[in-house]
Amino acid sequence: GIAVLDHDRARRRGYPEAVFCEGKSPAQLRAIATALRDRHRGEPDAVVPRTLFTRADEERAAAVLEVLPEALYEPEARLLAWPPAPPEPSGGLVVVACAGTSDLPVAREAELTARYLGRRTELVVDVGIAGLHRILGRVDTLRSAAAIVVVAGMDGALPGVVAGLVSAPVVAVPTSVGYGASFDGLAALLTMLNSCAPGVGVVNIDNGYGGGHLAAQIAADRA
Amino acid sequence: GIAVLDHDRARRRGYPEAVFCEGKSPAQLRAIATALRDRHRGEPDAVVPRTLFTRADEERAAAVLEVLPEALYEPEARLLAWPPAPPEPSGGLVVVACAGTSDLPVAREAELTARYLGRRTELVVDVGIAGLHRILGRVDTLRSAAAIVVVAGMDGALPGVVAGLVSAPVVAVPTSVGYGASFDGLAALLTMLNSCAPGVGVVNIDNGYGGGHLAAQIAADRA
Amino acid sequence: GIAVLDHDRARRRGYPEAVFCEGKSPAQLRAIATALRDRHRGEPDAVVPRTLFTRADEERAAAVLEVLPEALYEPEARLLAWPPAPPEPSGGLVVVACAGTSDLPVAREAELTARYLGRRTELVVDVGIAGLHRILGRVDTLRSAAAIVVVAGMDGALPGVVAGLVSAPVVAVPTSVGYGASFDGLAALLTMLNSCAPGVGVVNIDNGYGGGHLAAQIAADRA
Amino acid sequence: GIAVLDHDRARRRGYPEAVFCEGKSPAQLRAIATALRDRHRGEPDAVVPRTLFTRADEERAAAVLEVLPEALYEPEARLLAWPPAPPEPSGGLVVVACAGTSDLPVAREAELTARYLGRRTELVVDVGIAGLHRILGRVDTLRSAAAIVVVAGMDGALPGVVAGLVSAPVVAVPTSVGYGASFDGLAALLTMLNSCAPGVGVVNIDNGYGGGHLAAQIAADRA
Amino acid sequence: GIAVLDHDRARRRGYPEAVFCEGKSPAQLRAIATALRDRHRGEPDAVVPRTLFTRADEERAAAVLEVLPEALYEPEARLLAWPPAPPEPSGGLVVVACAGTSDLPVAREAELTARYLGRRTELVVDVGIAGLHRILGRVDTLRSAAAIVVVAGMDGALPGVVAGLVSAPVVAVPTSVGYGASFDGLAALLTMLNSCAPGVGVVNIDNGYGGGHLAAQIAADRA
Amino acid sequence: GIAVLDHDRARRRGYPEAVFCEGKSPAQLRAIATALRDRHRGEPDAVVPRTLFTRADEERAAAVLEVLPEALYEPEARLLAWPPAPPEPSGGLVVVACAGTSDLPVAREAELTARYLGRRTELVVDVGIAGLHRILGRVDTLRSAAAIVVVAGMDGALPGVVAGLVSAPVVAVPTSVGYGASFDGLAALLTMLNSCAPGVGVVNIDNGYGGGHLAAQIAADRA
Amino acid sequence: GIAVLDHDRARRRGYPEAVFCEGKSPAQLRAIATALRDRHRGEPDAVVPRTLFTRADEERAAAVLEVLPEALYEPEARLLAWPPAPPEPSGGLVVVACAGTSDLPVAREAELTARYLGRRTELVVDVGIAGLHRILGRVDTLRSAAAIVVVAGMDGALPGVVAGLVSAPVVAVPTSVGYGASFDGLAALLTMLNSCAPGVGVVNIDNGYGGGHLAAQIAADRA
Amino acid sequence: GIAVLDHDRARRRGYPEAVFCEGKSPAQLRAIATALRDRHRGEPDAVVPRTLFTRADEERAAAVLEVLPEALYEPEARLLAWPPAPPEPSGGLVVVACAGTSDLPVAREAELTARYLGRRTELVVDVGIAGLHRILGRVDTLRSAAAIVVVAGMDGALPGVVAGLVSAPVVAVPTSVGYGASFDGLAALLTMLNSCAPGVGVVNIDNGYGGGHLAAQIAADRA
Ligand SMILES: Nc1ncnc2c1ncn2[C@@H]1O[C@H](COP(=O)(O)O)[C@@H](O)[C@H]1O
Ligand SMILES: Nc1ncnc2c1ncn2[C@@H]1O[C@H](COP(=O)(O)O)[C@@H](O)[C@H]1O
Ligand SMILES: Nc1ncnc2c1ncn2[C@@H]1O[C@H](COP(=O)(O)O)[C@@H](O)[C@H]1O
Ligand SMILES: Nc1ncnc2c1ncn2[C@@H]1O[C@H](COP(=O)(O)O)[C@@H](O)[C@H]1O
Ligand SMILES: [Mg+2]
Ligand SMILES: [Mg+2]
Ligand SMILES: [Mg+2]
Ligand SMILES: [Mg+2]
Ligand SMILES: [Mg+2]
Ligand SMILES: [Mg+2]
Ligand SMILES: [Mg+2]
Ligand SMILES: [Mg+2]
Repeated sequence: GIAVLDHDRARRRGYPEAVFCEGKSPAQLRAIATALRDRHRGEPDAVVPRTLFTRADEERAAAVLEVLPEALYEPEARLLAWPPAPPEPSGGLVVVACAGTSDLPVAREAELTARYLGRRTELVVDVGIAGLHRILGRVDTLRSAAAIVVVAGMDGALPGVVAGLVSAPVVAVPTSVGYGASFDGLAALLTMLNSCAPGVGVVNIDNGYGGGHLAAQIAADRA
Repeated sequence: GIAVLDHDRARRRGYPEAVFCEGKSPAQLRAIATALRDRHRGEPDAVVPRTLFTRADEERAAAVLEVLPEALYEPEARLLAWPPAPPEPSGGLVVVACAGTSDLPVAREAELTARYLGRRTELVVDVGIAGLHRILGRVDTLRSAAAIVVVAGMDGALPGVVAGLVSAPVVAVPTSVGYGASFDGLAALLTMLNSCAPGVGVVNIDNGYGGGHLAAQIAADRA
Repeated sequence: GIAVLDHDRARRRGYPEAVFCEGKSPAQLRAIATALRDRHRGEPDAVVPRTLFTRADEERAAAVLEVLPEALYEPEARLLAWPPAPPEPSGGLVVVACAGTSDLPVAREAELTARYLGRRTELVVDVGIAGLHRILGRVDTLRSAAAIVVVAGMDGALPGVVAGLVSAPVVAVPTSVGYGASFDGLAALLTMLNSCAPGVGVVNIDNGYGGGHLAAQIAADRA
Repeated sequence: GIAVLDHDRARRRGYPEAVFCEGKSPAQLRAIATALRDRHRGEPDAVVPRTLFTRADEERAAAVLEVLPEALYEPEARLLAWPPAPPEPSGGLVVVACAGTSDLPVAREAELTARYLGRRTELVVDVGIAGLHRILGRVDTLRSAAAIVVVAGMDGALPGVVAGLVSAPVVAVPTSVGYGASFDGLAALLTMLNSCAPGVGVVNIDNGYGGGHLAAQIAADRA
Repeated sequence: GIAVLDHDRARRRGYPEAVFCEGKSPAQLRAIATALRDRHRGEPDAVVPRTLFTRADEERAAAVLEVLPEALYEPEARLLAWPPAPPEPSGGLVVVACAGTSDLPVAREAELTARYLGRRTELVVDVGIAGLHRILGRVDTLRSAAAIVVVAGMDGALPGVVAGLVSAPVVAVPTSVGYGASFDGLAALLTMLNSCAPGVGVVNIDNGYGGGHLAAQIAADRA
Repeated sequence: GIAVLDHDRARRRGYPEAVFCEGKSPAQLRAIATALRDRHRGEPDAVVPRTLFTRADEERAAAVLEVLPEALYEPEARLLAWPPAPPEPSGGLVVVACAGTSDLPVAREAELTARYLGRRTELVVDVGIAGLHRILGRVDTLRSAAAIVVVAGMDGALPGVVAGLVSAPVVAVPTSVGYGASFDGLAALLTMLNSCAPGVGVVNIDNGYGGGHLAAQIAADRA
Repeated sequence: GIAVLDHDRARRRGYPEAVFCEGKSPAQLRAIATALRDRHRGEPDAVVPRTLFTRADEERAAAVLEVLPEALYEPEARLLAWPPAPPEPSGGLVVVACAGTSDLPVAREAELTARYLGRRTELVVDVGIAGLHRILGRVDTLRSAAAIVVVAGMDGALPGVVAGLVSAPVVAVPTSVGYGASFDGLAALLTMLNSCAPGVGVVNIDNGYGGGHLAAQIAADRA
Repeated sequence: GIAVLDHDRARRRGYPEAVFCEGKSPAQLRAIATALRDRHRGEPDAVVPRTLFTRADEERAAAVLEVLPEALYEPEARLLAWPPAPPEPSGGLVVVACAGTSDLPVAREAELTARYLGRRTELVVDVGIAGLHRILGRVDTLRSAAAIVVVAGMDGALPGVVAGLVSAPVVAVPTSVGYGASFDGLAALLTMLNSCAPGVGVVNIDNGYGGGHLAAQIAADRA
């Protein structure tokens, strides 16, 4: 076979494996989706671990939807979820904040990931530090969160500012928004790693999936 | 004055400001320690927020100890704590694991930070992936943690291996242990950011303080 | 002429020259294929050293196939072989393992190269470290190899894990699979160069040809 | 000779040449100081353009002071000024703000440079973004400036925050304060170049001299 | 909403927010333009702060023009201005000089930005240092400026040469013009940051908007 | 005007200015070609300094040829020459050697440049170090040169090998041929800068024009 | 304890663990040496797996020798071996060649490692490509090897030249010998990864231990 | 032996090998010097090829002088020459120009190398572009040269300016003079590689030896 899905992950970690679609051909994705469908045929919805397909462009999404037509596809976030309904939420609130409108796709990927892993979520958009009153006006929302995902490109300064205002952990997601010396998100990444406010954990550039996953783990109820 | 301590931080965030000693002169540190002492003179121990002095070499530690002789100094972790007794532990367990003996100073800095921020901690040493049975033999300890700090230099592969085995969030701390193409920790940092197991939040190279702080926040009881 | 093929290489090294197709025009490739064909016209199959054309996209492959219609073309591996039949295998087994499905094209290039240089090969797919039981379940296969090629993108951690489990040399091939701070394979490359398990030799990013070639040399019978 | 001082610069630009001491031997600095002294011997103080010696450690400063004993030396800023008295101030106010105590040497170099080029200056210390109330409490001072120099290491986020609050131009000076992925000031430099608030001009890492010089030009009265 | 325009910026800073179009979809830009139009409906031209839309390609410009048909669009500079008439000029002259013809788009973006923020501007083209007589022949123009924007790619040497000739501040804008070891403008950026003539403030690669904005601030009359 | 051609360069340097076409629009190139044609209308061929247009793709070449139909265009080298006939050769021989077939476009650009600046040239193709006998078989040709341009991608090792065999200066031109850790020519560039054989001067990646120009200067007869 | 030696490695891999001394304190090394000694007390020499201590400066070597006085210490290679006698050689010959005299310490570390892992070795010194006749004069030695370690700094071109001449695998070890754009061995590393001759596996900069280990594995007799 | 001097180089290339002293121990240098002395014992001065020892600090120089007491040592250039007298000059003039006083050691190394390889030389100091009249005042000297070495750190802009003024080839030597974003000479190196004036060949950072060697070759009389 071309893929060995880590079906054991849900048991071992409590969260199922996701399929990374970039770099897989539509034919390969069809094969993976078929294997998934066949495995869970006849099982009641409750016991099927939800599977996410990440970074799926329109062509790859179509290939998956051919096999799993009931799956949900969010083009902006490039995310597919199957089965389509998110689980009943548990744990604390995950707030996802992004610095600019251009960061929305990554922020939405984070938000949906957290929701499909079982958390309540809230999205706060376009609150970059160039106009500080915007984020300061949302401090109450931020303080109600059990985990905060902060998404930013360009200077990447927002996560540090947020971390300085709250007690919850901040998951920082740098984006490739910007140009020139932003070096496709490297500048934002370095800013976040050097945050002078402690309490910031950083994931890969444009990794909304990873940011939402980590936040969902942080906000989970402890066994 | 040469410094404006963020005394409000304990109220705002629940964790007090730490003093970064690198790049400050002994004279400046004496002044800061004096301001701190004068502020809390006469207050009962319970209400004084514990202050950490990080990355303090012997000379800088001596300067602080002159003013705050009762402070505790851990040379390996280059950490000072004042007042010296850690708070009564609350929240979940923080496990700190490190890949090699050479990563110990950073791992100890993380462990002590988490303990002074109020968590129980446990240290697991020299369990790098070159001999996989070592970390596999400690899975029970790892699974008992509410947050795991994983410290590694060279290839930086340990945090991803750990994240793949547990449900708790992993805080990854790359170290500058290594040579040549480790580029002073850059190789380990990149490995961790690209972890193919989700659930890894990365902090700066050699940033044991930041790793311990974030883990303490994650393992805290939610209000 | 536009090319001076190193016909002497098979005599000098025991392995024939390969033609790197990227950056050559279809017209240039037709000319090279013609020169090759003319040189070996009328010679019996046994004495013609097999020639590989690497990194050949569909357009370039078509140009070669026009002149050498009996050549074998594997589009996934972007490889052409002429004459099409691999030699009778000799030497030890070459195992090629890859971390994810997206690494398959590079893994296949390595496998085919090793086979056309005269080795038996076996392919192990999608055994990345996020689900460690997958590679641990294949240790017997790995231990039966005389040389192991390990192909991985993203964090690039798999070669080090494999090297820690076996006595055979590991040839590590980083791939450009990933995004953001994977920097097109740089992260995986650095991980492999810093492997804390010794016994890992690294080749260029996405260089399946080079990985398969080196493994074939290692697994050859010594004169 | 070993040096050709640009004596014409004061006439051409309105500001005299400064001597960069790093990489010059004490003997070379003595020779340069002697040439300067001999050139201005007997001239009244008013017409002698003030000369600054920058990045002068104790040993180099001593070499200059041997020849020009009346020069002023500020060890923290590593700056010598000769003649020692700054000119009568003109133009607008230059405010120099720095994020942390460790940035003070660079901030002082900027402040002294601006003062010796003829501006009034004011210094604001330790107002980094981890405790945002500190800089917000100084907005009135910032708004009274004709040019603001903002000095920061680590995440380098302060200049963007300041620029978003005021109408005056901000000169951003990244410092090498930090460690690990701060890469000796590169992280702060990139943050500043990618500031999402416009109105930020960046100079070299640790270049307090350049920052103060540019601010003095901006705050000058126009002819 | 998908955007939270910083309408307060004009009051706070004296200059209105600009909309960064790259990375926003045409639909998002239509929504932002509509919000802007609705806000200012019925207000006389004089009190509407001019809004710039930067880095707008033909498709994005068309989306904005659908909603704001009277807006002015300069395709070379990729800039939209609404309302279309620049304000009555005040303050000093902003001279924009560029090293080569290929730098013109960035130079024009800088010039238009400065004009729409209220300054008189003059453009000097193709005066790179390979033929030094060209810039030397324009020294009078340069000396008449209150602020000079110098735009250059490749070696990026022109800003330092200009700064050495004048007393006005120089805003240096590196461009991505060049190839190979220009690394998309990095070489020019580094040259400018290391300028051996003081008085150079650097903005991001290809950031004509930022360069023109800073120059407009520098050349403004002080309150 | 959009361009200020450095017509004085031929007088000052002995070699005319070349027009860099990348990043100029066809309309701009038409304007520059028209200015050139108008300037030299009616002058006899002998006194018109030959102008080269470099890095001209088909579309840009067509724009120039519209105005200067008699110009010569070499698509492989992306070079236009006007007037089309090279000057009568003088000085020593320029040998251009390249490591692989894929380096030919850059090698041809170098060769044509040297010829249009007045030198005799000879081209040696596909003599890379993987089959050392190829370059060793051409030592006589190399030793007959007054200047040698060596063009190589991937490992970039050929210029150092050549320099170790001859007394003439070697001009090394790295190319972007390669992939992965060749980083678009950076690996070859660094190899050449670190050549352990002295006598190697390096120009920019893919800069055939610069390599041919420098070689033509070296091989010129001294006044 | 501070260390968990991988005693199982000899059984699992056939080669014992080595102790990396850099970054360990003398006290830690004494403790590790003591644990090792106590474990093997009373066992006959034949069954004790040989342990290497790598990158041990004089001070660290002394600490080990205090506990294991019979160990052998080679200061140039910074290597300790205990027990001191290498095993009876088996397998093929390992040839170690280095480009310059300055590469000797790394070459010796490789040679000793291979010998202590059970191979016969031969050393070839100062045969860099600037004088090609030197390596060409040693082709017979190279062709007698089962594995060749090639050590080079600066341009790092030697491994590719050697690989082009032989059928045995080449293990390339870049060194930090050089300055400026050698970037501490990065230039040599990239050259080796981009070798246009296949058959080169690369290890970390200055990693003589890793190079010798891999070569010993390659040259081992297959079970 | 530890070294295989390339004695054939003088015959093959016309210039003798130099000994790179950095990274060699004093004992190794004594051995090399002894071999050299023994080889030429009794030969008349005229036929002994002059040998240079480069980058020799005081300690290494002393080791060589012990064996070859008549050798000449220039500490500023860190250069030893043996026999001490330079050859009778031939060929054209080599002019060495440097931007600042701090570049003098590298400039002197270049000058002495060219003189010991047989050229007349002239040194022009401290003529950086911040005060352009300085280099413009030396154009006559520059135009009298057959080859010009231009040495500069920081912005590295001088070689391009010089190349634009003359017909002779320019050898550019970047230096590590500067700080921060000069990245130890990288900024100057990139500037020189991207020089918009053609006719610049670049050597390694701080490589005065290589710069002088190449210039001597260029200025040599052709056979
Ligand atoms: N968008 C993503 N970013 C990072 N990792 C991912 C992403 N999507 C899936 N993964 C992880 O990547 C690993 C390899 O994926 P695959 O190539 O599908 O085997 C899986 O274990 C996933 O958990
Ligand atoms: N071309 C540009 N380059 C850099 N910054 C810009 C540019 N255009 C707008 N901005 C700024 O980028 C910030 C974020 O933009 P937005 O994504 O539209 O919220 C705004 O505050 C603008 O001032
Ligand atoms: N010089 C060396 N270079 C690279 N790896 C080494 C070196 N010496 C020992 N190692 C490996 O580094 C790993 C970690 O060593 P330690 O820190 O001693 O636990 C061990 O598994 C060794 O095999
Ligand atoms: N300062 C220098 N910079 C660069 N190359 C040098 C220098 N000095 C000597 N070389 C060359 O470096 C090569 C290797 O030197 P060695 O390590 O002495 O064998 C010799 O061929 C020298 O020509
Ligand atoms: Mg916005
Ligand atoms: Mg260990
Ligand atoms: Mg998988
Ligand atoms: Mg502070
Ligand atoms: Mg031009
Ligand atoms: Mg070829
Ligand atoms: Mg040598
Ligand atoms: Mg000077």
